[in-house]
Amino acid sequence: MIDPAAPPTSDPIAELLTTYNDLNSSSPDELTEIPSPLEFMRYVSRNQPFVVRGGASDWKATRTWSVDVLKERMAGMRVNVAVTPKGNADAPVKSEDGEMLFLKPWEEEQDFAQFMDFVIQQEGSGEMNGEVRYAQTQNDNLRNEYSELFTDVDPSIPFARIALQKPPEAINLWIGNSHSVTALHKDNYENIYVQIIGQKHFVLLPPLAYACVNEKEMSPGSYVRGEGGELLVKREDGDRVPFALWDPDGRGGEGTRYSGLARPVRVSLGKGDMLYLPALWQVQSYHKVSQSCEDGICCAVNYWHDMEFGGSFYPFCGFARNVALGAFVD
Amino acid sequence: MIDPAAPPTSDPIAELLTTYNDLNSSSPDELTEIPSPLEFMRYVSRNQPFVVRGGASDWKATRTWSVDVLKERMAGMRVNVAVTPKGNADAPVKSEDGEMLFLKPWEEEQDFAQFMDFVIQQEGSGEMNGEVRYAQTQNDNLRNEYSELFTDVDPSIPFARIALQKPPEAINLWIGNSHSVTALHKDNYENIYVQIIGQKHFVLLPPLAYACVNEKEMSPGSYVRGEGGELLVKREDGDRVPFALWDPDGRGGEGTRYSGLARPVRVSLGKGDMLYLPALWQVQSYHKVSQSCEDGICCAVNYWHDMEFGGSFYPFCGFARNVALGAFVD
Repeated sequence: MIDPAAPPTSDPIAELLTTYNDLNSSSPDELTEIPSPLEFMRYVSRNQPFVVRGGASDWKATRTWSVDVLKERMAGMRVNVAVTPKGNADAPVKSEDGEMLFLKPWEEEQDFAQFMDFVIQQEGSGEMNGEVRYAQTQNDNLRNEYSELFTDVDPSIPFARIALQKPPEAINLWIGNSHSVTALHKDNYENIYVQIIGQKHFVLLPPLAYACVNEKEMSPGSYVRGEGGELLVKREDGDRVPFALWDPDGRGGEGTRYSGLARPVRVSLGKGDMLYLPALWQVQSYHKVSQSCEDGICCAVNYWHDMEFGGSFYPFCGFARNVALGAFVD
Repeated sequence: MIDPAAPPTSDPIAELLTTYNDLNSSSPDELTEIPSPLEFMRYVSRNQPFVVRGGASDWKATRTWSVDVLKERMAGMRVNVAVTPKGNADAPVKSEDGEMLFLKPWEEEQDFAQFMDFVIQQEGSGEMNGEVRYAQTQNDNLRNEYSELFTDVDPSIPFARIALQKPPEAINLWIGNSHSVTALHKDNYENIYVQIIGQKHFVLLPPLAYACVNEKEMSPGSYVRGEGGELLVKREDGDRVPFALWDPDGRGGEGTRYSGLARPVRVSLGKGDMLYLPALWQVQSYHKVSQSCEDGICCAVNYWHDMEFGGSFYPFCGFARNVALGAFVD
């Protein structure tokens, strides 16, 4: 059906990547103030990320949250915690027999103060202590599990709510330490990410870079806590899960013959910084905890807005994926 | 490089077209008033056309222009006129030896009143009289050749100028009769098209439908007027010209095996109607002249704004074209 020797380009995928690189910067725009809905819509239109330095610096959360304040406000409450051996929740892991599995974390309820103490103690010790804990339930938790804290952040991101004509679908709180990492993945959401405590480092790839991420189908599974408290791998029934294997930072996950044409966008968020993370971008992230000032935790809030499926963007993304997958039949 | 038998879809082009059809209407949105810059930007973001019925009904041009008024205002002036045997300017034409040529029209200066008389007389006679004349210089003619008339239209389209952050690159006046047709073509512009006199019918295809339009490379040429006044075909040196062969209305130009998956958007403009024609859409159009009320001419004005090349849209369009061309190597 598709002839590799066809003019005018012998490799449409390579040309897609190089054309994009020629026309776009690999540094996101840095705004010094919150955009208007129209300014934001121009970024949505281009599906391009931007950062607003200090965009949330006047939020009560940014000004007042600390480990002590959070423990006081959440005193006596139990929260859902994702537990993994190495901080790799929702990530590809090679099993003992060499098969790649897509593993979800073990989830359990923990007393909030005890969870915080574990995270801080681990960060301070510099060792992993057998498991990594991350509060990361992406189910609108800030308006539910953590509703006590919700009054300290903006109830919506007005420029996004007005431009996209919808309130946030979910508002999520994230608390962890520098051992939590997020593997390259994508979401069907227009995402506004706000750093409250600590630093977070993102590596981002545009949706048209599918051919670079080395998507493979993996058997599903999850970690489960054994009777001795240890974390075991449990395979699950169900459909195989497509997931990206590539690590743009070169710490293990292998790429494809196109990965070298990707120009990852790198951006670091500090206290009060705001990031627009456009729909369907591939995102990899890790935390950096500045011990001296930040009490040994990283804390962030993000706002997910349903993306637009009308128009050409979503079909084009699926097309790039299908052509890429077709190119890698071994 | 690209394997036709690859999972998960054996034909990414077919899936691109059907996904788009599932998520989009083939009728453009009909607005009853001029959009705000933000509302316009949402359409730009989706690369989706819309019509504003009566959006220019209060323009002085819409209210006052007639054949008599135009002849009076342009009295004594000479204008550039495109002349073709059958109304097909900038179109593929099969030569006597069977080769497809891409032919530009013969262009000559004519007295405006004589040009108008020819157009009207031809429309009234119902016969073609050997040639078709169309004032269609797409070189910002309304601010140059026809600057006498420019005061009667809006100097820019404010919602587009504000949203796109640039004034119109060109503002063009078009005067012809029902014999002028425009073959399927695309422009690198965000286009606002305003009908002043008569009716115009558009057939539109989104940029992702490249595989449907049957683009072929053709030798360039143009019509030239011979010594006896007749129009002759002149081949020209120069690069071959890629151009769409398909006629979605089935009046000749052949399609591809994918053309049946296209869902052309059809829209008719009447007096004072405004159309947003998004960048890189394939456009085919013809005129309809309502003799009784419109004096036997069609007249329109359009505003071209440079499109955005940053972001993913433009690279995706080139990718769809390259994959489509690769699929048709015979």
